[in-house]
Amino acid sequence: MPLPTRNIRLTLAYDGSNYVGWQIQPNGVTVQQLVQKAISDLTGEETKLIAAGRTDSGVHALGQVANFQTSSTIPAEKFASALQSRLPEDIIARDSEEVPERFHATYSAVRKCYRYLIHHREIGLPFLRNYTWRFGNELDLHKMREAAQHIVGTHDFRCFETQYPNKATSVRTVEHLTIECQSMWNVWSAFDFENQQSKVADSDEVLCIEISADGFLYNMVRAITGTLVDVGRGRYQPDDVQRMLEEGDRSLAGPTAPAHGLYLVSVDYDMNNLRPKD
Amino acid sequence: MPLPTRNIRLTLAYDGSNYVGWQIQPNGVTVQQLVQKAISDLTGEETKLIAAGRTDSGVHALGQVANFQTSSTIPAEKFASALQSRLPEDIIARDSEEVPERFHATYSAVRKCYRYLIHHREIGLPFLRNYTWRFGNELDLHKMREAAQHIVGTHDFRCFETQYPNKATSVRTVEHLTIECQSMWNVWSAFDFENQQSKVADSDEVLCIEISADGFLYNMVRAITGTLVDVGRGRYQPDDVQRMLEEGDRSLAGPTAPAHGLYLVSVDYDMNNLRPKD
Repeated sequence: MPLPTRNIRLTLAYDGSNYVGWQIQPNGVTVQQLVQKAISDLTGEETKLIAAGRTDSGVHALGQVANFQTSSTIPAEKFASALQSRLPEDIIARDSEEVPERFHATYSAVRKCYRYLIHHREIGLPFLRNYTWRFGNELDLHKMREAAQHIVGTHDFRCFETQYPNKATSVRTVEHLTIECQSMWNVWSAFDFENQQSKVADSDEVLCIEISADGFLYNMVRAITGTLVDVGRGRYQPDDVQRMLEEGDRSLAGPTAPAHGLYLVSVDYDMNNLRPKD
Repeated sequence: MPLPTRNIRLTLAYDGSNYVGWQIQPNGVTVQQLVQKAISDLTGEETKLIAAGRTDSGVHALGQVANFQTSSTIPAEKFASALQSRLPEDIIARDSEEVPERFHATYSAVRKCYRYLIHHREIGLPFLRNYTWRFGNELDLHKMREAAQHIVGTHDFRCFETQYPNKATSVRTVEHLTIECQSMWNVWSAFDFENQQSKVADSDEVLCIEISADGFLYNMVRAITGTLVDVGRGRYQPDDVQRMLEEGDRSLAGPTAPAHGLYLVSVDYDMNNLRPKD
């Protein structure tokens, strides 16, 4: 009798600087490749790891979610620490648990949250070059927040999509879009943010754009960020964002912000009502 | 008639993660090599860059000082920005100025200051792996500070020197040794700390050991740090440090802390009374 197969959900944090992204590809080392290898070294099984978001080269994660099938008898909650000993220090296996068979990290996701960090400074800090987008100009936060109000809600977001059309629909619902000054430490510690929050005071170290939505188009957060920054520097007025959304033309919106300021923060699932795989 | 030669002082910050240290060597890329190349690309002259401290592989700098001779007519204060455009983002040319001919970055230094960063956390933050020493145990700061009092002052520090004897004397004067919880941002922003200080509140993000002395032996800060951490975790009592100094035996003191937690913060010179080159 074959061993029963279990579905394991992993939560991962990683520094994307040294990887060509999540998804396995021939041109360099990827996060998926190293985590899959750690799983097969541990269990002796070949497996396919499915992620909530296929982050691009240089993009970071605080709470990427992935799942894989295994017939190993290792307790589900032990996978995180067992995999950690087989992973480099820039990939952290935060947590592991058993989930129902129909849980699929990509299709079951009901909400994702990203943060984009911008760092205003004339002279760079050498330590932040891979972790924030350094922007030399002062930005008008009031205008950026005004522009952000046009983005919140259900819209056709094709003006913020690279390579449209590549999806059945480019309609998404942005549930939340905030622009706040934050401590770098708070952002980096997002995965135990509740513990840290009381200890660390407000600060204006980095500008943090946080966006959550039911789904994201390719490069959508980076295109929104590039556009909001162009509003903040006065190249567009806040109401121009309304027009971009209506016209649906990528060339009317701002540039795609660099990958290295982007963090996948968290992915939400409705575990009581898991979406089918299709 | 040959052009007059000027002596230029450079102040540099760098992330040491991708370099095999300051000094040119056959086994990898060094900071000295890239800055010298930037100077020769800019001036057309071959030159030798002399640094205050030859930082090891993985060690960072916020305020390394170096000097070089040039007969170029470029204004002294323009060198920093002209070199920056020829340097990678992990090396920052902060400042440049003309100094008297007898200024020598190494021999004229009267004081250097280093910081060592320790980060207490069971699970690592992937972004800090190259910038702090992550230590899983809680440390007793009171005992560490008590131990530090034995180190301040003029002593023979051979118990904290790797490869003794390699200097004429191992007597040095530690002027200041503090152990404080700090914001990572404050530490990283040390080079415009006065501007930042009012904005950023106290926090307990990282433990920062700051040591200034008239000179340092090889690996001295890292050996002192490893010993203070051993006091903090209870392996030694504070008074044991007194005995280590008296006995002068490296094997009696604690381990050498990893390179990647160490930062050369600043170097002081008495410009009105420059020490001769010997």
